[in-house]
Amino acid sequence: MKLLEERIREQGIVIGSDILKVDMFLNHQIDASLLFEMGKEFKRLFEKERITKILTVEVSGIAIASMAALHFGVPVLYAKKTPSSNSSSDVYASDVYSFTKNKTYNIRVSKEFLSSDDSVLIIDDFLANGNAVLGLLNIVHAAGAKTAGVGIAIEKGFMPGREIVKKQGVHLESLAIVEKMGPEGIIFGKND
Amino acid sequence: MKLLEERIREQGIVIGSDILKVDMFLNHQIDASLLFEMGKEFKRLFEKERITKILTVEVSGIAIASMAALHFGVPVLYAKKTPSSNSSSDVYASDVYSFTKNKTYNIRVSKEFLSSDDSVLIIDDFLANGNAVLGLLNIVHAAGAKTAGVGIAIEKGFMPGREIVKKQGVHLESLAIVEKMGPEGIIFGKND
Repeated sequence: MKLLEERIREQGIVIGSDILKVDMFLNHQIDASLLFEMGKEFKRLFEKERITKILTVEVSGIAIASMAALHFGVPVLYAKKTPSSNSSSDVYASDVYSFTKNKTYNIRVSKEFLSSDDSVLIIDDFLANGNAVLGLLNIVHAAGAKTAGVGIAIEKGFMPGREIVKKQGVHLESLAIVEKMGPEGIIFGKND
Repeated sequence: MKLLEERIREQGIVIGSDILKVDMFLNHQIDASLLFEMGKEFKRLFEKERITKILTVEVSGIAIASMAALHFGVPVLYAKKTPSSNSSSDVYASDVYSFTKNKTYNIRVSKEFLSSDDSVLIIDDFLANGNAVLGLLNIVHAAGAKTAGVGIAIEKGFMPGREIVKKQGVHLESLAIVEKMGPEGIIFGKND
């Protein structure tokens, strides 16, 4: 998606060869209009899939998933990372290891919001090692629901995430794929 | 806002006399269309204010603030609760005690995204004791920015939040004010 690639080039901050900060428009400050357009693009990419629900994980997937939901006309469900005194214990759960934070999260979704009738589009901000997506796929499987696809805002094409997710036989689309980055700039690739 | 009051009546779960769960459409599952309409209502309520940025706090304020941002045409900035290895140490910070979680969070915003030129609309999902809003107001003050107003989705009118926020001389608007709740149902009130 040209609009997103341009924004990453203009405002993304590359640290070393594998950290890309997009705090200017996605992960701290949010450009809602850009995310609205990204949601529209997800709708175009997954137009042929039956989708009843969008699933993401807090925190940074929520805004993108919500904008996509406007175009799909379905609810968003976000997996929680932190235990809450308000939460039910009746949940689908999966462990997710985050390399960025060097920590394992137990992500959870209330059973009441996901059923075997659901056909789920998983949306997340980044795909790198694929751990968050695998955790969300586990939750969809546990509910007996179907996975309609996985939509990613920014994929790190030099990381193993794509291969790991594709091995699950899932329809994967990324809006921007960073093949390489460093002091010389960013090189983008294409979806398979 | 009638639409939100009706939804709270239909899908809100009241526990005891002070806990209101809105996991069905706001805090776990998100009805993006409803939040889009709530964003439109915030625009109407704060139409006369100069607003350059919307400020909220993760997690549950993000979706509402993002939808509001579509109508205001300004960026959203969300304060972070958890330290990140990707974060700069150059932040405005404030301590916020959460009664729900019985825990104090240090909420933080990067200095680069808030300046003395900004006129900020603070948006959050709930107003109860006012602690989250006071923390966000501290951050706006620390940046030397102006507070254009505080927009709340659901206010617990029987809690001291309104009084505490109004003491700061801030324009406060809540989309739904729960005056009383219990087994007999929910009674809504009005903004001053």
